[in-house]
Amino acid sequence: MTDKTKRDMGDSETGGKADKSSTPKMQRRDFVTKGMMGIGAGLAGTQLIACGEKKNGAAQPPQTRSVSTTHSAAPESFHVPPGQLDDYYGFWSGGQSGEIRVVGVPSMRELKRIPVFNRCSASGWGGDDFSKALLGGKFSGDTHHVHLSYTHGTYDGRYVYVNDKAGARLARVRLDTFAVDHITFLPNSAGTHGIFPQRHKTGLVLCNSEFRLPMPNDGTAMEDELTYAAMHTAVDGETMEVKWQVMVEGNLDLCATDYEGNYSFATCYNSEGGAWLEDMMAADQDYLYVFHLANIEEAVKAGKTMTVGKSKVPVVDARGKNSPYVQRIPVPKSPHGVNVEPRGKYAIVAGKLSPTCSVVEIAKLADLFAGKLEPADCIVARPEVGLGPLHTCFDGKGFAYTSIFIDSMITKWDIAKAIEAHNGADVEPIVQKLDVHYQVGHINASMSETKDADGKWLIALCKFSKDRFLNVGPLHGENDQLIDISGDTMKLMHDGPTAPEPHDCVLVRLDLINPVKISPRTGPRFDLYNKWAKEDGVNLLRDNVVKRKGKHVRVYMTSMAPEFGTGEIKVKSGDIVQVILTNQDEVEDLSHGFCMTGHDVNFLVNPQDTNSMTFVAGEPGLYWFYCPWFCHALHLEMRGRMYVEA
Amino acid sequence: MTDKTKRDMGDSETGGKADKSSTPKMQRRDFVTKGMMGIGAGLAGTQLIACGEKKNGAAQPPQTRSVSTTHSAAPESFHVPPGQLDDYYGFWSGGQSGEIRVVGVPSMRELKRIPVFNRCSASGWGGDDFSKALLGGKFSGDTHHVHLSYTHGTYDGRYVYVNDKAGARLARVRLDTFAVDHITFLPNSAGTHGIFPQRHKTGLVLCNSEFRLPMPNDGTAMEDELTYAAMHTAVDGETMEVKWQVMVEGNLDLCATDYEGNYSFATCYNSEGGAWLEDMMAADQDYLYVFHLANIEEAVKAGKTMTVGKSKVPVVDARGKNSPYVQRIPVPKSPHGVNVEPRGKYAIVAGKLSPTCSVVEIAKLADLFAGKLEPADCIVARPEVGLGPLHTCFDGKGFAYTSIFIDSMITKWDIAKAIEAHNGADVEPIVQKLDVHYQVGHINASMSETKDADGKWLIALCKFSKDRFLNVGPLHGENDQLIDISGDTMKLMHDGPTAPEPHDCVLVRLDLINPVKISPRTGPRFDLYNKWAKEDGVNLLRDNVVKRKGKHVRVYMTSMAPEFGTGEIKVKSGDIVQVILTNQDEVEDLSHGFCMTGHDVNFLVNPQDTNSMTFVAGEPGLYWFYCPWFCHALHLEMRGRMYVEA
Repeated sequence: MTDKTKRDMGDSETGGKADKSSTPKMQRRDFVTKGMMGIGAGLAGTQLIACGEKKNGAAQPPQTRSVSTTHSAAPESFHVPPGQLDDYYGFWSGGQSGEIRVVGVPSMRELKRIPVFNRCSASGWGGDDFSKALLGGKFSGDTHHVHLSYTHGTYDGRYVYVNDKAGARLARVRLDTFAVDHITFLPNSAGTHGIFPQRHKTGLVLCNSEFRLPMPNDGTAMEDELTYAAMHTAVDGETMEVKWQVMVEGNLDLCATDYEGNYSFATCYNSEGGAWLEDMMAADQDYLYVFHLANIEEAVKAGKTMTVGKSKVPVVDARGKNSPYVQRIPVPKSPHGVNVEPRGKYAIVAGKLSPTCSVVEIAKLADLFAGKLEPADCIVARPEVGLGPLHTCFDGKGFAYTSIFIDSMITKWDIAKAIEAHNGADVEPIVQKLDVHYQVGHINASMSETKDADGKWLIALCKFSKDRFLNVGPLHGENDQLIDISGDTMKLMHDGPTAPEPHDCVLVRLDLINPVKISPRTGPRFDLYNKWAKEDGVNLLRDNVVKRKGKHVRVYMTSMAPEFGTGEIKVKSGDIVQVILTNQDEVEDLSHGFCMTGHDVNFLVNPQDTNSMTFVAGEPGLYWFYCPWFCHALHLEMRGRMYVEA
Repeated sequence: MTDKTKRDMGDSETGGKADKSSTPKMQRRDFVTKGMMGIGAGLAGTQLIACGEKKNGAAQPPQTRSVSTTHSAAPESFHVPPGQLDDYYGFWSGGQSGEIRVVGVPSMRELKRIPVFNRCSASGWGGDDFSKALLGGKFSGDTHHVHLSYTHGTYDGRYVYVNDKAGARLARVRLDTFAVDHITFLPNSAGTHGIFPQRHKTGLVLCNSEFRLPMPNDGTAMEDELTYAAMHTAVDGETMEVKWQVMVEGNLDLCATDYEGNYSFATCYNSEGGAWLEDMMAADQDYLYVFHLANIEEAVKAGKTMTVGKSKVPVVDARGKNSPYVQRIPVPKSPHGVNVEPRGKYAIVAGKLSPTCSVVEIAKLADLFAGKLEPADCIVARPEVGLGPLHTCFDGKGFAYTSIFIDSMITKWDIAKAIEAHNGADVEPIVQKLDVHYQVGHINASMSETKDADGKWLIALCKFSKDRFLNVGPLHGENDQLIDISGDTMKLMHDGPTAPEPHDCVLVRLDLINPVKISPRTGPRFDLYNKWAKEDGVNLLRDNVVKRKGKHVRVYMTSMAPEFGTGEIKVKSGDIVQVILTNQDEVEDLSHGFCMTGHDVNFLVNPQDTNSMTFVAGEPGLYWFYCPWFCHALHLEMRGRMYVEA
């Protein structure tokens, strides 16, 4: 199958579609009769958006948003005219770009790039003193999954969590400032892939390590893959501390939580424990791992744990067999996504190498852990959805939408009918199959991962774009497609090219997010600045002074358009210069920056914010510094001189 | 004015508009009578796009593009439906992001980010061996102006040039691969701002240094700004070598060339030579500098030059007074943009602190250099366009469009009527003033900077977006607005949020660009790879071998979805490991990458391309490497192990 799949994917003549002759069991794509198309347009005009009050966010003034400027067209119209606002905040994981993107939906306009694990020239992220300490001079990241913090089963507007597969890290973004405030390293982990926060409250964030490692991974025994293990790690969503880990034998892929705070789920596609492609695909069966959180926490509390390597995090050893901590539900080989539908009743496991989804009834899990059921008895349906099913999302009306990678399509199916069919009823659960372009990975729908799923829009994150956009050389963008799911049938509305490589996204109703417009001057960054200011007896918001200790020179500066508070800096070549700049402007959108020519120094300072960067003064000479953010008609004149003496 | 301007910009209640009471001479914004609106719709349906052949690009197969999939609606419809293509390639300078963006027009979809002076986590740019040598570990850039190479007055589809204001550099992007192939450092320069290539052929690229420096800038005399000077630098657009520099006393802002290859132009807004805001604005008059290229080259050839500092580049000293090399045409104080209209007859200088544009007749410049005219006699019109005019673009029908920063509007005016009015005729050159949102900087129109200006679309790069998009925290995006100029009046079509901070853009007809889909394996990068392969007796496209010399380990690898040619690498902690990966896949869009967990290593390898990165092997242990580009249904399984021994 490997060779065939590859040919299919690469063949632009056939639009990247699979050879149907090899998939005799598959439904035809035009399964839905033409007579069904277009039914249900009456549902389309309903507008669920409202201007709500902030729920659980960090302290900030309530934001007033004029309803009249909000886009309120029926879902069929995705165009948001000039001066109107989108209906949803989309949070996109940027994959190898290491960033998060904020995308307005339905317009599909990128509203912001949030640098996380990457170096951002525009903001200075990765080079400024605060983020440099967080990232340690590492500038490669691979963000995979973004999820917002929850309370009572829906988004509480406080935080976004995102993982780095390349560096085994979990980052958090504050949703008042849309900026990272914490990055946590996950010990004994490699290839951190699926993450999911608990949904009953801002509690744990569960993180799966996909690549199994020797435990400990200290170089003493490295080559026998049959001894490797993987970690399911719990991070406290409030403090960002690692609370505990559960060690298992199989690799852990995607992650989900239930709505009650009882369980977390992980797909395992390589229960063989292979390290080579053919070994990973050897067995016909893999698993959905179910973690029993209360039992695990009880074991941690009782000290029934170990530590691994240099880490002090308590580890529950759950390798090898089912236990009060982990149960393994068998599914066809190499599953990928696991998604819990909005009523919280079913977890749906996509088959990847099986053309099916396995539906697990969550209510049965208590009996499973009580030993009253066999793991396989928890599966209540297994509909055939297409070749290469990866992820499933929901509309809150009982339908599931599964992304089909090899077939390049989205399959809409009826969960209740799938269960009936599994029980022997002669019903057809498949509702529609819609072509997408091409090779879709993740999909998500508006509010799909909350109890408030509203069935308006679906996003298909296609991994290949091939011929869908103007050719821009050998590296093609991905294609984020916008699909209207408000009616009985899905409708493709828009092709959205994106920089590599969105892995996942969530769509959040605009009333649930309430950002500030002016820096609140709080959080770990300000703990740092306030500490320095106290040491030096400086008022950050007012003072323009230089504090020298030997070769270390702290330059405290202010800015107010179109001038810096300091126009001249005198240092010696080789001095370690730290510029700490506070933007005195209180006007929305009036950001400044500080760029020192010839020194690789450039950073952003938002209204009423402070930021800082440290550099070594170069060869003797004059170096101009300037504000690189167009802030004023006299912006070009906003500059000063650094004299570097021999 | 400073305080007032700032208040105006910051006041979102008034939509960022200037207080009209301070501008008694200004036209009312609703100057155009309603009776004029909507006239000329008959022009709108004309479709000028055609599939042309490649002109002067690097060797590559001609691209076939199906006309039927190309967007061909009338300009009023900017929506490009799924499966159809944009009509124009837009090239955007990304400002502080350090990148170039490729944007499809009219859909305003970002098709690609091209990393230039920044570190890109996704592609590895800045960290891979080739770009690391180009950038030297510096990851801050400030791209300001993008211009394509020309032949016979229009784009020849070969190269894009872009400057870095922060680091005084000029980069070049190949338009077959859409990737940087050269970066040139400009000596004795700071704040490199305006650049422009010659338009008669791929000749010189002229670069202005905005920040004046001591000459030489070696730390011996730094503080007397009256001794500073600036450089107008000529870079060979083919070899990317610096050919010569002209030293002048005033700072040099924007740049333009004529269509004949005779002149280059630079606005000078600080002829006072001030270093402080109030000094820079002291005089009521500044200049347009006109450089006579043949006279300069003759001086260089005759050795009438000097060198400055460590640089060996010949410098023509043209400080202080008009000469055969430079003539100074007086304009009202603090001009900004200079733009030459498509017939090549006039250079138009925007006033910034004067509400006017000064129109310079290029045909008069020969007499100016011959001593037959006074500089001021070259000005043939000076229309009043609004408060804070910055840049001007053209539609090829005789109209100019000037961006008005403080008034936040675009003013459309008639060049011929402005000249008539200047000569005393009672005609009104101003045609329309259109509000934009907000504080517009650069503007450009489709093909505006070529003889083929076609008057379809205009882009307004607004520096503030304020309330135009969902709030995403204190840092707001900019707003790139799309305006239809195909009719008699401008129409605002679309608000486009963008990451900071587009400075300029050009819109290029799609038939003029012919990228390749598969790596051509040519250019300076491949000179490097082929040198290594020859040293080691390796066939890059085939071999998977490890070459060790002491602590230096070269790992030659191949990839073909879904496997690397090498599954295991054995090294010792502290080894310097260089991974040289060649993608054997020949399928369009089938890019791979190489990510080494825990080592900050991630880079892209396009189909048939090679890329490499060097790192130090970390603590003893097992590290997985994987392909981070979703390339296949078994993409997750595409990985291998590096064993690091003590």
